[in-house]
Amino acid sequence: MSRPVPVALIGVGGVGKAILQQLLAPPLAAKFNLILIANSRKALSLPLPTNAPVTPANFLPILEEHGAPLDVPSVISLLASHPDGPGIFIDSTGAEAVPALYPTVLGHGVHVVTPNKKGTSGDLALYKAIEDASYPNTRALIYGESTVGAGLPILSSLKDLVGTGDEIEKIEGVFSGTLSYIFNEYSKVEGGDVAFSEVVKIAKDKGYTEPDPRDDLSGADVARKLTILSRLVPTAPELPKGYASVPTQSLVPPVLENASTKEEYLERLAEGDSYFANLREEARKEGKVVRYVGVIDIANNKVECKLGKYDFDHAFATALKGSDNIISFHTKRYSPRPLIIQGAGAGADVTAMGCTSDLLKIYERIRL
Amino acid sequence: MSRPVPVALIGVGGVGKAILQQLLAPPLAAKFNLILIANSRKALSLPLPTNAPVTPANFLPILEEHGAPLDVPSVISLLASHPDGPGIFIDSTGAEAVPALYPTVLGHGVHVVTPNKKGTSGDLALYKAIEDASYPNTRALIYGESTVGAGLPILSSLKDLVGTGDEIEKIEGVFSGTLSYIFNEYSKVEGGDVAFSEVVKIAKDKGYTEPDPRDDLSGADVARKLTILSRLVPTAPELPKGYASVPTQSLVPPVLENASTKEEYLERLAEGDSYFANLREEARKEGKVVRYVGVIDIANNKVECKLGKYDFDHAFATALKGSDNIISFHTKRYSPRPLIIQGAGAGADVTAMGCTSDLLKIYERIRL
Repeated sequence: MSRPVPVALIGVGGVGKAILQQLLAPPLAAKFNLILIANSRKALSLPLPTNAPVTPANFLPILEEHGAPLDVPSVISLLASHPDGPGIFIDSTGAEAVPALYPTVLGHGVHVVTPNKKGTSGDLALYKAIEDASYPNTRALIYGESTVGAGLPILSSLKDLVGTGDEIEKIEGVFSGTLSYIFNEYSKVEGGDVAFSEVVKIAKDKGYTEPDPRDDLSGADVARKLTILSRLVPTAPELPKGYASVPTQSLVPPVLENASTKEEYLERLAEGDSYFANLREEARKEGKVVRYVGVIDIANNKVECKLGKYDFDHAFATALKGSDNIISFHTKRYSPRPLIIQGAGAGADVTAMGCTSDLLKIYERIRL
Repeated sequence: MSRPVPVALIGVGGVGKAILQQLLAPPLAAKFNLILIANSRKALSLPLPTNAPVTPANFLPILEEHGAPLDVPSVISLLASHPDGPGIFIDSTGAEAVPALYPTVLGHGVHVVTPNKKGTSGDLALYKAIEDASYPNTRALIYGESTVGAGLPILSSLKDLVGTGDEIEKIEGVFSGTLSYIFNEYSKVEGGDVAFSEVVKIAKDKGYTEPDPRDDLSGADVARKLTILSRLVPTAPELPKGYASVPTQSLVPPVLENASTKEEYLERLAEGDSYFANLREEARKEGKVVRYVGVIDIANNKVECKLGKYDFDHAFATALKGSDNIISFHTKRYSPRPLIIQGAGAGADVTAMGCTSDLLKIYERIRL
C-alpha cells in the first residue's frame, strides 16, 4: 500500500460533513490522511495531541474548542511541505475568497478538489490563472466534478468527448434540482392546474429551495454551471465575466421584481401565477411542457438559461422525475441521438461523492 | 510537452480503423506515438523505412505488402523496451487468444486498452490473473471502458460509485444496441402489431445484427457485459465461468431451437412470431412494454439476462430510442431514483472513443 495522501478540508456545512463521512470510512480511509479540518473561522490540525479519534459525529465541538484561527496560507504550507505531500486542498466553502486563492494553492504544487462553483464560473482572469497554475502547465491537479450535476459524471464525460476529438454541437439540460422539481410538478404531460406559487411554496417547505427562493429562481446557479461547461469546449463563446456574461431568464415575474424583502416576495408570490399559467397553457396547446434549461448551442454561438418548451415525448418531459438533473450532449459522434446523463444533481451525499471520486482520481495519478 | 507514449494497435476492423482515425488526428496525435499496427496475421512497424506517412486511408495495402507475420511476444518486447515506454497495447481484435495474453503483457509493465470483452467476461481464473498483474498490484494499467456501452461512461461511473463507498443495490439496463432496436420497434407504448420476424429482418437489413442474428438473440453478449460489471461490485455473486455462469434467456424461440443453419433459421423466423406476440399482448394488458434487459440484483444475489416488462412511463419504455443503450444504477445514494446513462452503445466511432479516452487516462497517469 502506498503512503496515504495528506488532505485538508475547509468548509464543514452539509457537503463538507458528507465528505468527511466518506473520507473517514472504507474504502477511502486507507488512501487519505486528514491533516486539517476547518470552518470559515477556525482550523484544527489532526491528529489531536491526545490522539483521540475525530469522527463526523464529534468533530464540531472539538473544532470550536481547540481550533486556531483559520489562516489559509498556513494550510497551503502544511500541505505543500508534508513529508507525504504535496497534498490535496478541499474547498467545500461557498465563499468567493477561497477560490481566489486556487492559483496560489496550485502554485505551491498542492492539488485542489472543489464543489465550489465560484472559482471556475466567474471572471475569465481567475479561470485563466487557475489554468496556468495547473496540469498540464504544472504538476498540480484541480478537479471540480461536483460543480455541475453533483456526483453525476458530467464534467468528466465532456472532457472525454473533447479530449478524444469529438465535436460538441449542443449541450442542453435541466441543471438545477430546485427548478427541475418545480417544473416537473408545475407542467406535466398529463396536465393539471396547480398554481406556480403553490409549487414554489411546497418546494420551499420540502427544503428544495434556498431560504430565499429568488436565489434559485434568478437562474444564476444554472448560468454558473453553463459557464463551467462552456469553458471546457474550445469552440464555445468566450464568457469574459463568467456567469454574468450568460443571458439568463429570471423566473421572478415582472410584477414581483420590485418586492424588496423575501417575506414580501413570498407573500405576493401568487401575483405572478397568471404569468406562468399563460406560459404553461401556451405550451400545452403545442403539445409541450415547460422546463427551465441551460443551453450551450455551438452552431448558433449562444449560451443561455431560459424557459424552454419540450414535446410530451421528449426526455425532459417524460424521463425527468423529482428533482433530478438531466443533461444531453449532442455531438458529431452522438448524433442524431445525444448522450444523456440523468440523476440526482443536488444533495450532500452525491455532491460529496463527486468530490471523493475526484480525490480518488488524484490519488491514482500521484500514487501510480 | 511530455514525450509521446508509444502505442501498438492490434486489430484493424471497424473499431480498429476508427481508433486509428482518432489516434492520428488532433488533439490525440501529439500525445501518442503509433509504433506498430497489426491485423490477425501481419504486423507493420512504424515509422516506415521511407518515412512515408501512414493514414487510416492508406495503411491496409502497406500492411499487406510490407507487414511481417504477427508475433505478439515481440510486440510486447517492443512496447516494454521502448525508450519512451513502457507503452500501451491496444487489443481491438475479437479473439480469445489475445486477451489470454493480458497477464503477460501487463507482467512486462506494458499497459492495456481493450474494447474486447473476452478478457474480463470469461473464466474467473483469467480475470484474477489480469487483476494480479495490474494496478494497484503492479504499475501496469488496464482500461476497458468500451467493453460495456461503447463510449458511454458506464465502467468509470461504477468504479466511482464503488470506490467512494456507495452501496450498489441494482444495476439494470438495455445493454445490446441490436436488442434495443428490436424491442423499441416491436413493443411500443403506442401499440402496433408488427411481427417479430419482420423487425428482426429490418434490423438485419440495416446492419444492426450480426450476420447470424442468433448471435445477438442468444443474449450471450449481454451476459458478457453483466459479467464485466458484476466483477466491479464486491457484493455481487461470483461468476466462476464468467458469462457462462449468467442465467440467460435466449430469444431464439423454442420452435426454432432445432434450426440447424442460419438460412433455415431466417426462413423459419415467422414460426416464432406467435410466441413473441403472446408476450407482447400479455405485457400490454398490464400497461407495459417488453424489453430485453440485463439485471444485477444485489439484494437477491442474482445476475440475469431476460425479457422484462416495464410500465409505459418507465425510462426503458419512454426515453429509450433507436438502438441506444440505457443503464440505471440504483444505489444507497442514488435512491429512490437511479443514476441513468443513455446513448449509442455500439458503432465504430463511439466504441473507438471509449478506447481513446482510456488512452488519455493512461497518458495523464504516466505523464504527470
